[in-house]
Amino acid sequence: MATPSTGRTATAWRRDLHAHPEVGFTEFRTASRVAGRLADLGWDIRTGTAALDPGARLGVPDDEALDRAFTAAAGDTDRAGDDRFLPPMRGGRTAVVATLDIGRPGRHVALRADMDALPIVESTAAGHVPHEQGFRSTREGEMHACGHDGHVGMAIELAERLSADPPDGRVTILLQPAEEGGRGAAAMVPAGVVDDVDVLLAAHLGIGLESRTVAAAVDGLLANTKLRAIFHGRAAHAAMAPHEGRSALLAAAAATLAVHTMPPFPGHETRVAVGALHGGTVSNIVPDRATMLLETRADEGEVNEEIEARVRAALEGAAATYGGTVEIERTGAVTTATGDPEIATAVAAAARATGLDVVTPTAELGVASDDATAFMRRVQSRGGRATYLAVGSDLAGPHHTPGFDLDESVLGPGVDLLERAVRDLMA
Amino acid sequence: MATPSTGRTATAWRRDLHAHPEVGFTEFRTASRVAGRLADLGWDIRTGTAALDPGARLGVPDDEALDRAFTAAAGDTDRAGDDRFLPPMRGGRTAVVATLDIGRPGRHVALRADMDALPIVESTAAGHVPHEQGFRSTREGEMHACGHDGHVGMAIELAERLSADPPDGRVTILLQPAEEGGRGAAAMVPAGVVDDVDVLLAAHLGIGLESRTVAAAVDGLLANTKLRAIFHGRAAHAAMAPHEGRSALLAAAAATLAVHTMPPFPGHETRVAVGALHGGTVSNIVPDRATMLLETRADEGEVNEEIEARVRAALEGAAATYGGTVEIERTGAVTTATGDPEIATAVAAAARATGLDVVTPTAELGVASDDATAFMRRVQSRGGRATYLAVGSDLAGPHHTPGFDLDESVLGPGVDLLERAVRDLMA
Amino acid sequence: MATPSTGRTATAWRRDLHAHPEVGFTEFRTASRVAGRLADLGWDIRTGTAALDPGARLGVPDDEALDRAFTAAAGDTDRAGDDRFLPPMRGGRTAVVATLDIGRPGRHVALRADMDALPIVESTAAGHVPHEQGFRSTREGEMHACGHDGHVGMAIELAERLSADPPDGRVTILLQPAEEGGRGAAAMVPAGVVDDVDVLLAAHLGIGLESRTVAAAVDGLLANTKLRAIFHGRAAHAAMAPHEGRSALLAAAAATLAVHTMPPFPGHETRVAVGALHGGTVSNIVPDRATMLLETRADEGEVNEEIEARVRAALEGAAATYGGTVEIERTGAVTTATGDPEIATAVAAAARATGLDVVTPTAELGVASDDATAFMRRVQSRGGRATYLAVGSDLAGPHHTPGFDLDESVLGPGVDLLERAVRDLMA
Amino acid sequence: MATPSTGRTATAWRRDLHAHPEVGFTEFRTASRVAGRLADLGWDIRTGTAALDPGARLGVPDDEALDRAFTAAAGDTDRAGDDRFLPPMRGGRTAVVATLDIGRPGRHVALRADMDALPIVESTAAGHVPHEQGFRSTREGEMHACGHDGHVGMAIELAERLSADPPDGRVTILLQPAEEGGRGAAAMVPAGVVDDVDVLLAAHLGIGLESRTVAAAVDGLLANTKLRAIFHGRAAHAAMAPHEGRSALLAAAAATLAVHTMPPFPGHETRVAVGALHGGTVSNIVPDRATMLLETRADEGEVNEEIEARVRAALEGAAATYGGTVEIERTGAVTTATGDPEIATAVAAAARATGLDVVTPTAELGVASDDATAFMRRVQSRGGRATYLAVGSDLAGPHHTPGFDLDESVLGPGVDLLERAVRDLMA
Repeated sequence: MATPSTGRTATAWRRDLHAHPEVGFTEFRTASRVAGRLADLGWDIRTGTAALDPGARLGVPDDEALDRAFTAAAGDTDRAGDDRFLPPMRGGRTAVVATLDIGRPGRHVALRADMDALPIVESTAAGHVPHEQGFRSTREGEMHACGHDGHVGMAIELAERLSADPPDGRVTILLQPAEEGGRGAAAMVPAGVVDDVDVLLAAHLGIGLESRTVAAAVDGLLANTKLRAIFHGRAAHAAMAPHEGRSALLAAAAATLAVHTMPPFPGHETRVAVGALHGGTVSNIVPDRATMLLETRADEGEVNEEIEARVRAALEGAAATYGGTVEIERTGAVTTATGDPEIATAVAAAARATGLDVVTPTAELGVASDDATAFMRRVQSRGGRATYLAVGSDLAGPHHTPGFDLDESVLGPGVDLLERAVRDLMA
Repeated sequence: MATPSTGRTATAWRRDLHAHPEVGFTEFRTASRVAGRLADLGWDIRTGTAALDPGARLGVPDDEALDRAFTAAAGDTDRAGDDRFLPPMRGGRTAVVATLDIGRPGRHVALRADMDALPIVESTAAGHVPHEQGFRSTREGEMHACGHDGHVGMAIELAERLSADPPDGRVTILLQPAEEGGRGAAAMVPAGVVDDVDVLLAAHLGIGLESRTVAAAVDGLLANTKLRAIFHGRAAHAAMAPHEGRSALLAAAAATLAVHTMPPFPGHETRVAVGALHGGTVSNIVPDRATMLLETRADEGEVNEEIEARVRAALEGAAATYGGTVEIERTGAVTTATGDPEIATAVAAAARATGLDVVTPTAELGVASDDATAFMRRVQSRGGRATYLAVGSDLAGPHHTPGFDLDESVLGPGVDLLERAVRDLMA
Repeated sequence: MATPSTGRTATAWRRDLHAHPEVGFTEFRTASRVAGRLADLGWDIRTGTAALDPGARLGVPDDEALDRAFTAAAGDTDRAGDDRFLPPMRGGRTAVVATLDIGRPGRHVALRADMDALPIVESTAAGHVPHEQGFRSTREGEMHACGHDGHVGMAIELAERLSADPPDGRVTILLQPAEEGGRGAAAMVPAGVVDDVDVLLAAHLGIGLESRTVAAAVDGLLANTKLRAIFHGRAAHAAMAPHEGRSALLAAAAATLAVHTMPPFPGHETRVAVGALHGGTVSNIVPDRATMLLETRADEGEVNEEIEARVRAALEGAAATYGGTVEIERTGAVTTATGDPEIATAVAAAARATGLDVVTPTAELGVASDDATAFMRRVQSRGGRATYLAVGSDLAGPHHTPGFDLDESVLGPGVDLLERAVRDLMA
Repeated sequence: MATPSTGRTATAWRRDLHAHPEVGFTEFRTASRVAGRLADLGWDIRTGTAALDPGARLGVPDDEALDRAFTAAAGDTDRAGDDRFLPPMRGGRTAVVATLDIGRPGRHVALRADMDALPIVESTAAGHVPHEQGFRSTREGEMHACGHDGHVGMAIELAERLSADPPDGRVTILLQPAEEGGRGAAAMVPAGVVDDVDVLLAAHLGIGLESRTVAAAVDGLLANTKLRAIFHGRAAHAAMAPHEGRSALLAAAAATLAVHTMPPFPGHETRVAVGALHGGTVSNIVPDRATMLLETRADEGEVNEEIEARVRAALEGAAATYGGTVEIERTGAVTTATGDPEIATAVAAAARATGLDVVTPTAELGVASDDATAFMRRVQSRGGRATYLAVGSDLAGPHHTPGFDLDESVLGPGVDLLERAVRDLMA
């Protein structure tokens, strides 16, 4: 490593992406522009079905939403993507796998960077930096409120630095769609993109750590299953023929209560949550349809599976109780993973060499979920090793809220840390 | 009719029975004593399986309770029955069919009188006449709180008067067990006891009418199904292994709410009620069993059947929702019936001749249930006719409450009315 | 009456309005055009606050929606209203009261016609006449699916015929906004618009009657209260801090079950219905807000009031149970009313004279609600008389469904009937 | 220590107590006999209000039950207590504090032994040793199913051995009533009985440990609050006047669901359980009363308090939702406590010296509750130290089940362990 990063490239990309957020599987502008830049730097690019198995995706937006987003990324305005890479991405195939390989033998180190935004209306409050400095979201209702814009920004600057002085072996950047909801990584794994990776690093900004700190091993991420349940009943006029109706809302209400009564599993962290319920239009029609979004989590995959099974039985039982039916779709699934201590040790060393404080993750960190675990498990199952690290950043507001904002001063040191770790692990 | 009844016999019997109440299918003392008295008067007696099909009974007490009650009726104390008639009644075969037939051709008129008491602790309040005058229940926890003691008393005095001057044709008194819960009449019908009845009268004291009034036709009695639902779950220590438990109480709670959400059926009177729920013993064991008593009613049999079917589905759905099962037993079933206007007209005429006011039943009367409807429907289906009449009585407290008491002064006029109606209908 | 109506004017207006539906309190085009036409015919026009007390309205759309609709009615296209009458209607003051008074003393007869459409996407199915004949709704998501377009059409043609040969006395046409939801009439009553009316007629097309039949008195319309309940909880990350959240959806679910357990009131038709529930956005945020639309009905105002009070207590109790609060807003309120037999008799005579069959309303008719009852009660309370009549029309689909359509051949006879009834009642 | 204990005295007492179990606050025979024996050995005895503050008791049986039990312990049969000590115990003041003090200065070491049985019908299955060997419970419906009989047996034998060779300082045995439900220790603390204790040992047999093992420090016992909630509604005939009723069972059902939806507290073990619900008698009466037994637990007192507060709010909210009220009574309360490592170390050394294996308690042990924590906290707050130890015993069936039985061969070594620990800690 020559000179410390100023983080300028990372910050510029981060701001551009922040202004143009794209939710899961619609990252057409982001993914194609990133692919274009990395191709220009000499990296080998795989995208479309070469980077992702479309049939393995969960929670894919409907065709109309995909088409609308794809169309919006065409053209040559600021809102457009890179048309060299857009075509294979059509229909939500927005993964990018970029590899730098100058032909010298060595280890294969991969870094995961996630690209998707959230369906949140960004703040316009005084003091909200993106708003005040002109890079607030230009897509109302979508927002980078988790820091993925920073992840991509750091990855681009890292790539520039690695290209300038390529290490022996191979480096791959896994640019993943749809991390939110736990949907993208699991679809990339079957495309074989990490099958020959020796070391995998997955990094996340923020999550409770202060600026200039690093947690080299965030273990105990919760397994997480996201479900969409659509209750079907029978419509009827609520005054003239209430006995002919079967209220999908009554079923959904009973189901909401039921799944929240899931008992604790001693010694485990578990969660069940109904996050959204939408049904009916007017007061005088018995509603024949209600849509519920819910999720389960546990610190052990088998426990999460048992909870999911019990939740499904409860949803079905509640529907039957009220004379209806329910369709249940898995829209996301994240497993647990545990990192390898030797990789964490290397990352910690790199962090210290970069001048960052190494800290132990708090319990709160441990109850988040990230589908990078799908990459971690695959790498480990084929003999490789992995760690999930957190790069601290003071936040203007919590993750997933309208006032979220990163401390951009951590991007430069973050790039340095990643570069050092990658080079060390390849040595 | 010679002279008006003083009601002395009716009152004496009523007080004796009031002091010795017996709940449904345990009317050993009552039924055997009544059979003995009517036999002594020269009436032909059928009892045991000649009067009732044991397999057609619903809600039969368990063997131990039946044995205990039967044993209590043996011996020769005040508490004992008439041992000439006890043996065939063993096991809850406590119906008595008594017929007066002096061999002259004529019509066959039948009167229903029900014999069973309720599981209620009788009042000991100041002013409660049975308590103050020494004929309060001697069987703690059982009580004649609906007036059946008066029904039997009037039937005995009526029998005496008819025996003294027998009409042409036949008169039958149907002494029915287990009217409460709707269990006894339906078991007597298949024994053929009303198959050749030309006219059936079913009379009830009280039910909202003032003393010295009569409603000659109480139509629109509700169909009524009584259910016992036993929820089964899985026990577990609530602190050490809550995840291994399946709470029968959670299932029963969800079911309680669910069945009460039954929508109205426009144009119909309908009811669903969970009257009792019992489950669990201590706070730290997940309860594996809960017993629910519930009922459905409707003013039309088909509607009641639909409601019962939906209730059963709801109970099963709720059990499944919470990982358990439910057993559902019908413990009572009463249908609707509509009387015949010509019989009501005859009864009304008899009432006026007796000096009683004939009134139109109130809406409240119409939502009661009485399994005399099983007799009515059978008689009508074979070409006979029927009416359900109410004999007014000022009450000291509502039916089915600890302070219930009849106005005994109505018993004499009641006997007169019945005698006059029977004789008129046989003429 | 000279010659029978061909219904041409009524049909032409009906089709124009059908193509330009406007939901409650946004009837800017409809109301202003109707006011313009009636003014041109010489009727005296009151609108804006002269016809309606803005503060007495319930369920008013928000300012933005009102402004958008008002703006859409400006200009001079097909979509525009009559700018002579638009200004006072701004902000949803869309009632019109038109009176024909040629100065000769006589009775004051009023006819109610309602103008609002429903928030329904109209059918594009083959065979749907408005679609095939080119007068399907041009405002996607709004539709005349209840026949109000026909009511206004008949009123216009009636006005033309009355203007051509004015009767002695006064005739008023009450063009009411927001009948759906029971919101408009109650706001017109305090403006005094029916205070000196001697006879009020409220007519509705369809509601279960065949073409060429008339029910001259539809009594027993149900009282109806519409509520919007907004449950407030506390948001939290469902995995990281579930204990800090208070789920508005759990509260709303418990409330949904609770209000549906309202017991029957013997002898009454009653209804409680939760028609819509919307809360939350994603599965991993504890939802802090849920909006419920619900309604109560009863065939007696006092019973409906008791039910509303119990519903409100249940909503508040459920909110408290789950650590939240609830705001409850009445968005509609309709009372019961009973017509006057002499007016019904006059209408029936007019119907027969018009060649229509007079029928008795079915039970189903009796459980609908219409806020014309507010006018009826006011008229009756000041010594006048009223009836609610139904003009039969074969329907292509039920009221309030996308495939609803009138039989336009009934419009001409309907105008004749109304003209005859008005003239007879004024004579 | 001279010779190892044979456990004969412990076993004899254990069997006698096993045959005469007494539930919480009715331990008249047990407590008085123990007091008598210890007095005979020369120990100083405090009992009645000297050992317990009656007003600080929770979950006290009603007066009738207390009187019945007290009377049963009078007389001079096998079922009788020791009449020297019975009088002050009347009314449930069944604590005994016995102290051996020969006047030589030294430390004050106390041992807690609990005396109460459980409301369980003991097994009569083949192979159930107490049944086969003739010491099954003679009080049907009460049973020593947790091992407290063994605790007292060991305490008596320990007392004999200490009396034979008294150590310097003081030894106190705290014979506690009503450990089950967490009710007795908290009532003894305010009587000052542990205020000058230097070292407190609380021992429990079984709880998951094999025979001949010892866990010297069972920490993380859960705080535990037991509640009785009585829901009040309004009775009504379910068919004739359902609208006048307010079902206490509907309220209790909603409450049952509500309290079970308590969310997890990340990083904590928490529990909420409704263990019993009883309401109503027959299907046709709206139940006006329902009694619920429930409990909360947490591994931190403050968390348990927050959960209790939320549970209470939920119970009250549910009652209000259904138009009723609820009375909530705390019937038990246990806090958490953490032992002192130096005492655990001493116990572990004593165990090894006795030939027992020292093991680490499993997670399951950690989620039990024991109100010995009240003694521990008091001792620690006054500068003393404590530990909660478990003496392993293979069990014939789980704690709190009808087939529970101890391995009596552990009683002798248990006495040895306790003697050695007491003497070592006093040295």
